[in-house]
Amino acid sequence: MSMNPTCPFPISDYPTVTLAHGGGGALMHQLIDRMFLTAFRNPLLDAGHDGAVFGMNGANVALTTDSYVVQPLFFPGGDIGTLAVNGTVNDLAMCGARPLYLTLGMILEEGLPMETLWRIVQSIREAADRAGVAIVTGDTKVVDRGKGDGIYINTAGVGALTQGRDINPGRIQSGDVILLSGDVGRHGIAIMAVREGLEFESAIESDCAPLAQPVLALSQAGVEVHSLRDLTRGGLASALVEHARTAGVTLRIEEKDVPVREDVQGACELLGLDPFYVANEGRFIAIIPERQGDAALEILRGFPVSEGAVRIGTVQERGRALVRLQSRINAPRIMDLLSGEQLPRIC
Amino acid sequence: MSMNPTCPFPISDYPTVTLAHGGGGALMHQLIDRMFLTAFRNPLLDAGHDGAVFGMNGANVALTTDSYVVQPLFFPGGDIGTLAVNGTVNDLAMCGARPLYLTLGMILEEGLPMETLWRIVQSIREAADRAGVAIVTGDTKVVDRGKGDGIYINTAGVGALTQGRDINPGRIQSGDVILLSGDVGRHGIAIMAVREGLEFESAIESDCAPLAQPVLALSQAGVEVHSLRDLTRGGLASALVEHARTAGVTLRIEEKDVPVREDVQGACELLGLDPFYVANEGRFIAIIPERQGDAALEILRGFPVSEGAVRIGTVQERGRALVRLQSRINAPRIMDLLSGEQLPRIC
Repeated sequence: MSMNPTCPFPISDYPTVTLAHGGGGALMHQLIDRMFLTAFRNPLLDAGHDGAVFGMNGANVALTTDSYVVQPLFFPGGDIGTLAVNGTVNDLAMCGARPLYLTLGMILEEGLPMETLWRIVQSIREAADRAGVAIVTGDTKVVDRGKGDGIYINTAGVGALTQGRDINPGRIQSGDVILLSGDVGRHGIAIMAVREGLEFESAIESDCAPLAQPVLALSQAGVEVHSLRDLTRGGLASALVEHARTAGVTLRIEEKDVPVREDVQGACELLGLDPFYVANEGRFIAIIPERQGDAALEILRGFPVSEGAVRIGTVQERGRALVRLQSRINAPRIMDLLSGEQLPRIC
Repeated sequence: MSMNPTCPFPISDYPTVTLAHGGGGALMHQLIDRMFLTAFRNPLLDAGHDGAVFGMNGANVALTTDSYVVQPLFFPGGDIGTLAVNGTVNDLAMCGARPLYLTLGMILEEGLPMETLWRIVQSIREAADRAGVAIVTGDTKVVDRGKGDGIYINTAGVGALTQGRDINPGRIQSGDVILLSGDVGRHGIAIMAVREGLEFESAIESDCAPLAQPVLALSQAGVEVHSLRDLTRGGLASALVEHARTAGVTLRIEEKDVPVREDVQGACELLGLDPFYVANEGRFIAIIPERQGDAALEILRGFPVSEGAVRIGTVQERGRALVRLQSRINAPRIMDLLSGEQLPRIC
């Protein structure tokens, strides 16, 4: 075979897989870029998107996948089933596609209570109904007791693009504005609160929700959407840094304009977390031409899931790939990917 | 929501998940039919196929998924990576589709040696090249040490149908012949031999291989393929029983016509296994009109992967869903799904 036997990933530096290799930060990106993308190189994979977009007999199709290993399985605002539907549906939406079909692969651990499985199956169905997708094929595996963690779920999603296939970080222009669909940090904090046994006056619920409706409404209204990204592992900050790098641009973000709920901010301080890096499951950024910014915000605010949409920054010069955060006290700070692991198994 | 809160699966009889619920036998079918298919009911899912087939903008698309949890990760003739490509590619082929794109979802266990991951990644690439598919999108998760078993892989596949979308068990006719693409039992025995430390004069290798070429050649030659199925978990016997049930027909199989290699037969006797129920990863049955049987065999025998193709039986009357095995000593026997678990984690 034509396989190069030397691995471009520095195996001697990282001889074993660590939790950080799945955390959405720098180590995960290194593993993906230098091992997976190098081995599987092809134009669709290289697009650096949340999913692949290709033509089939004249139809423009989006395809995406995610595995879900969240712990605990149930948390305020959702469970692993809700997540497995919305996470994948949202990746399709971020390609500008209308989500249509999901596959469902379940890896069950011997000893999982059937009642737990049934609760999760019901959540999957309810979330699929809400997102307007059908579960059309699936697979079930069982692993020995102690070789799993109750249940892991993989979903792959297929969506249809009606507006062409040109939503991707490569289209970002200097002068574009960056919109954020609502407050950040809730999903990660909802999970961490359960894990750490934190009590708040009222529970912080995950923001887990399907996002295709507001996204499709933008395109339908004629907004020239350059790029979209949902803010999952690694949070708002990582999504911005990935965008800056893929597009080769500087993004300027106003910290004061990024909404963080007071209870989420408090929990972050208690836990030593930066809310900009905390995972969300119902938030996205949209990068669009400045002239359409106000119209786009108005459209987004018409949907409950994005009623808190705001403008948080702008795309500045080409050529320097970085994210510049203008802080509340007006001190600039460069945002980067976290090198380690902030929140393991958040999705 | 319109969700029925009572589960049609008898939870009180099976309060927890057992290995047999993933084994390809009766318990797995009960779980799938009474919990998953009931909850997610839709026409595509109800077709009882290896994948879903649907139209998108005039294109006929096949979509399928499988998770892979095989132990050991490496075995004679392949590894979990080879399996993750060929298993999914073959499910597409069994829908009559040309496999095009794969997603790749990896769940890695903390502590997995990077060298192991790299070997598996290379296998995935080599298998994808051989099968003519591209890995176009993926996802990486890491779970804590002790919460996985090295690596679990999910692949979902997308394929294109050129010949319409009418290959499914519902098309089987009385009088059709049943063709088998080669000898059975090798994959399961290759795995079990490693697990049990069995030594043979020469290693029994898995038959793991991509099957789209011979299948597409049948359609291209004008063979009216009624139904196809690859013989994975549950082996030949389970595939036949599933077909008989979905189509509501009696299948008659001549035991003497089903090829089983001598070393595989010997290993099966040693291990107390029935080779008809042992998993394969490069074998399939094709059910076609009797008049085209000889021509189809000639086509199949032109490909290395199906050079041992034979005719093993016929479709008899409608209305009685069963598989009648005519044994070597001419005694008839009814084949059914195994109720328990024969070979856990074989794929």
